[in-house]
Amino acid sequence: SMQTSGSKPCPCPSFKLREVVSMYFTMIAVFLVILVVALQGSAPRGSDFPYKVPLDPKGLLELSWNVSYPEQAVHFQLLIRNLKFGVLFGMSDRGEFENADLAVLWSDGHSSYFGDAWSDAKGQLHMDSQQDYQLLGARKAPEGLYLLFRRAFSTCDPKDYLIEDGTVHLIYGILEKPVHSLQAINISAIHRGLQRVQLLKPNITIPKLPSDLNTMEITAPHVVIPSQETTYWCYMAELPDRFRKHHIIMYEPVITAGNEALVHHMEVFQCAAEFDTFPHYNGPCDSKMKPDRLNYCRHVLAAWAMGAQAFYYPEEAGLAFGGPGSSKYLRLEIHYHNPLVIKGRRDSSGIRLYYTATLRRYDAGIMELGLVYTPVMAIPPGEDAFILTGYCTDKCTQLALPAAGIHIFASQLHTHLAGRKVVTVLSRDGREQQVVNADGHYSPHFQEIRMLKEVVAVFPGDELITTCTYNTEDRSQATVGGFGIMEEMCVNYVHYYPQTQLELCKSAVDPGYLHRYFNLVNRFNDEEVCMCPQVSVPQQFYSIPWNTFNRDVLKSLYGFAPISMHCNKSSAVRFPGEWEKQLLPTITERLREPVPHCPPTPGPWPAAPVPLNLGDLRR
Amino acid sequence: SMQTSGSKPCPCPSFKLREVVSMYFTMIAVFLVILVVALQGSAPRGSDFPYKVPLDPKGLLELSWNVSYPEQAVHFQLLIRNLKFGVLFGMSDRGEFENADLAVLWSDGHSSYFGDAWSDAKGQLHMDSQQDYQLLGARKAPEGLYLLFRRAFSTCDPKDYLIEDGTVHLIYGILEKPVHSLQAINISAIHRGLQRVQLLKPNITIPKLPSDLNTMEITAPHVVIPSQETTYWCYMAELPDRFRKHHIIMYEPVITAGNEALVHHMEVFQCAAEFDTFPHYNGPCDSKMKPDRLNYCRHVLAAWAMGAQAFYYPEEAGLAFGGPGSSKYLRLEIHYHNPLVIKGRRDSSGIRLYYTATLRRYDAGIMELGLVYTPVMAIPPGEDAFILTGYCTDKCTQLALPAAGIHIFASQLHTHLAGRKVVTVLSRDGREQQVVNADGHYSPHFQEIRMLKEVVAVFPGDELITTCTYNTEDRSQATVGGFGIMEEMCVNYVHYYPQTQLELCKSAVDPGYLHRYFNLVNRFNDEEVCMCPQVSVPQQFYSIPWNTFNRDVLKSLYGFAPISMHCNKSSAVRFPGEWEKQLLPTITERLREPVPHCPPTPGPWPAAPVPLNLGDLRR
Repeated sequence: SMQTSGSKPCPCPSFKLREVVSMYFTMIAVFLVILVVALQGSAPRGSDFPYKVPLDPKGLLELSWNVSYPEQAVHFQLLIRNLKFGVLFGMSDRGEFENADLAVLWSDGHSSYFGDAWSDAKGQLHMDSQQDYQLLGARKAPEGLYLLFRRAFSTCDPKDYLIEDGTVHLIYGILEKPVHSLQAINISAIHRGLQRVQLLKPNITIPKLPSDLNTMEITAPHVVIPSQETTYWCYMAELPDRFRKHHIIMYEPVITAGNEALVHHMEVFQCAAEFDTFPHYNGPCDSKMKPDRLNYCRHVLAAWAMGAQAFYYPEEAGLAFGGPGSSKYLRLEIHYHNPLVIKGRRDSSGIRLYYTATLRRYDAGIMELGLVYTPVMAIPPGEDAFILTGYCTDKCTQLALPAAGIHIFASQLHTHLAGRKVVTVLSRDGREQQVVNADGHYSPHFQEIRMLKEVVAVFPGDELITTCTYNTEDRSQATVGGFGIMEEMCVNYVHYYPQTQLELCKSAVDPGYLHRYFNLVNRFNDEEVCMCPQVSVPQQFYSIPWNTFNRDVLKSLYGFAPISMHCNKSSAVRFPGEWEKQLLPTITERLREPVPHCPPTPGPWPAAPVPLNLGDLRR
Repeated sequence: SMQTSGSKPCPCPSFKLREVVSMYFTMIAVFLVILVVALQGSAPRGSDFPYKVPLDPKGLLELSWNVSYPEQAVHFQLLIRNLKFGVLFGMSDRGEFENADLAVLWSDGHSSYFGDAWSDAKGQLHMDSQQDYQLLGARKAPEGLYLLFRRAFSTCDPKDYLIEDGTVHLIYGILEKPVHSLQAINISAIHRGLQRVQLLKPNITIPKLPSDLNTMEITAPHVVIPSQETTYWCYMAELPDRFRKHHIIMYEPVITAGNEALVHHMEVFQCAAEFDTFPHYNGPCDSKMKPDRLNYCRHVLAAWAMGAQAFYYPEEAGLAFGGPGSSKYLRLEIHYHNPLVIKGRRDSSGIRLYYTATLRRYDAGIMELGLVYTPVMAIPPGEDAFILTGYCTDKCTQLALPAAGIHIFASQLHTHLAGRKVVTVLSRDGREQQVVNADGHYSPHFQEIRMLKEVVAVFPGDELITTCTYNTEDRSQATVGGFGIMEEMCVNYVHYYPQTQLELCKSAVDPGYLHRYFNLVNRFNDEEVCMCPQVSVPQQFYSIPWNTFNRDVLKSLYGFAPISMHCNKSSAVRFPGEWEKQLLPTITERLREPVPHCPPTPGPWPAAPVPLNLGDLRR
């Protein structure tokens, strides 16, 4: 069945790899020439880039982009007003300039170049061996230079940033002097900064809007933006008298022209119905003049952050407001970010609500997942990535959710200052099904309500597991759970429909097991720390000597000890049932880490800067 | 200083990416045609491939290879005797056919193809999106078909195997029927197997050999290889009378022609000097007829395993044998691997020692690093990757090593059946300096003495940290440390010069802290396990209920508790000093994981099989 034996060795000439490689390079050179020629003629259309954000506080750099999920790539349009000798644009884990992934346009005055670069742990720039920021075009216009480039979500180049869902820390730098090479750029000496955005916006079909759509603008009138870096501004608004129940079905930002780089984020809260009146107010939220009663306006109606577009409710649902049992008072909160300390700038920004009297089929609801606000959940000091997990158990969803399930369509992640990552996973019968919302570069300074890429259906018996990762490297004592800014939270506010009675599905470790831990730590370490019952849990945590054993065993405790469940109708009213000393949900099957798919990039190889004909930039 | 404003939008036509891409593909097609033509003429030279190993027990597939460190690539020459309808060759973590990385030659009878493929978790084959096994040539010869191909160590393709130092599990399969596509191959239905080799042989310069070089063959005469899968054969040899001290400076295998696929590994041991005589023996090591005294022949003089070449001592050193205070008795141990149960095969294989009377400057020595053989170091059952660490502390090296340091040039890693990885790292002042030897795919069935890529200098005050990873998924009770085959070891025998008195530098957890652990487990879990002092440590381990908390805390204990050091001149004699309750060495700086450098492969893209002109294979 074979014919190998007896055949003669082949007489053909030997394989000349060198020739083939040489030909290959010739072809690449041809390709490069074509690319350079083609660059001159690109004419981007603004409508191609639905998302836009200023990068710097002056708005000299303005980034527009679109996301192609079929191509798994982002197309960027960077407008450079007032171009001097180049710009850096890129991404890094948390906005640092070390270990960053950068697209660089630089000029020595005569010639200009574009290249994909990376910075090492010391901030030194290097040309990337794989050119994954692909220049698609450059165009001069009266307002400035437009650079068009493309970047695949993942490139498989270990020097490159992996673009994922959630927050992306964009970084920028402005070159004000000519540079003779990429390596000559001193990254610490240039004008630079960071901007957080959700780069991978979900690809949502805009729901049909009703004909009786009304709008209501909640804007703070005639604010003079304080000349300080950070201001939280509070303004009280009122619904009309006898305003009946409506559905908010969409909202969008209203930003005073020229203030796009100053208005960082805005939220509209509805006040508590138990108070008949709330005082008027229009001033900084931290002012001593601010009436205390404004603290009772915490029910989120709308939230917007820089880079976000309009928020649409799904076609079947709307957020109820107005009508009996609902306060007519609203609080608008605006975060002004004014790092250049600009003085006297006037602003009347806010949020425009779109609502209808023709109620949709379902009221939308908001549910809190994660950890109960209690000191029993604590993070040792000096940890770079300590993980705490909050559970919404099968027992609670079994009791509280309708048989047809609920549909989560949006989510807002929340921690205090030590939070670095947040993720909620849906699990069914011990098997992880899907990620509800994840942010691997979460920042407590950028808390948006995010529409989900796909609506997540949750049924009775499902589990929702929320995991938060904290960094306490700069702290010298334990960080306990709680409301204070130096205490921590781990929360995912999920927006869903149809609304149910379940407002809160959260957990904390059983306090009895925590007591055993304090005991064990004492005995094992021969410590004489007082574990007397009159000492508070935070005090007990503060007195622990944080050696590796005590840290590790706390992790083991949280991964093993039974939990106390809060399966609540409102923050104080539990569903009937036994909720203490519940077993931790077990996971028998984890979600697979997505394997990045990396199409080869047609960039020049070996890596070389792409020359750009921008003319002489001196003058 | 700029000239952007006022310039008109460029009037050139817009950038036609599609045309460029189309041209790019045309160029790739041209390249492919050239490749196919060139393939016919390759003429490999045998001398280009210094390493050789049969893959299957019959020797139908014979792999030769070389390693190019400058290119970071391996060149393979696969000889296929008796080609039928193709072969599979590849690599996987531990020799399994699922999640494997494969080069496949297949034929439907008329046409033959070569391609880079991968198998999924179910063993189904898929064409790889990136073709990283690059075919360089194919040549028919009287003895069979030679396939030449190249593979970079790392490809950055997540479907590909990363070729690292240490053991590589090669897998092969033989296609005995025509197949119409890669996907049609049913991997579980073909003739297949695995072969372990050290693929990345170190690039050693052969030291100058002296003129008075003598050889001595330690071979077992006229063995009839038993017709069973596994045989350990023992043969006693003797040095000549009054044989004075010599230096072994090199050794190599002597394999009886035709038995290359049967002789799996061989070792020569010197017997203990305290016995005047040892009985003759030539038979299976596990025979009841074997005299017990042979168990005292354990000092390794030479070791060889399949795929290894000659072993050279560094120019400055040799291994002393002969002379007063050294036994004249040697034991040769041969592992015959005979899975086809071939009967009556005769063998006289062994090891040829090259020695000289002109003693080199230094005697070489062997030192044991890792864990003491004691049950206090245990692995819970059902673990997929449990880690135990043994320390050679700064205090011991300070006392026992000469100021000029020692030079480690070779290493033999050792565990029992649960061992999966072994690594020794050198640390200085708390900072990891370099890997002494690492095997991430370690197999207890493939224990070679390996020459190191570079000699490692160890100075007084340095630390040598040996870490073993175990898999106990198939066990239902704890595995404790000890000599038994179902107990575990974690040892690195390092070969070094100049010889010192330090024979053993190993550690184990302090027994007092282990007792605290047993106590803690009892209290925390409300268990009534007897922790009475009369119960042995193994019995205490066997009675632990292995929940996640008890597992995790055992890990924490081993990572925290003080150790008992064995800093010994011989296995029973310690250096003077306090060696109990020593603090664990602290590591403040870890070695960086090497970032794989992945040059783009010139393979066809999109991935496509390369047609080979092998003619009609039916007949």
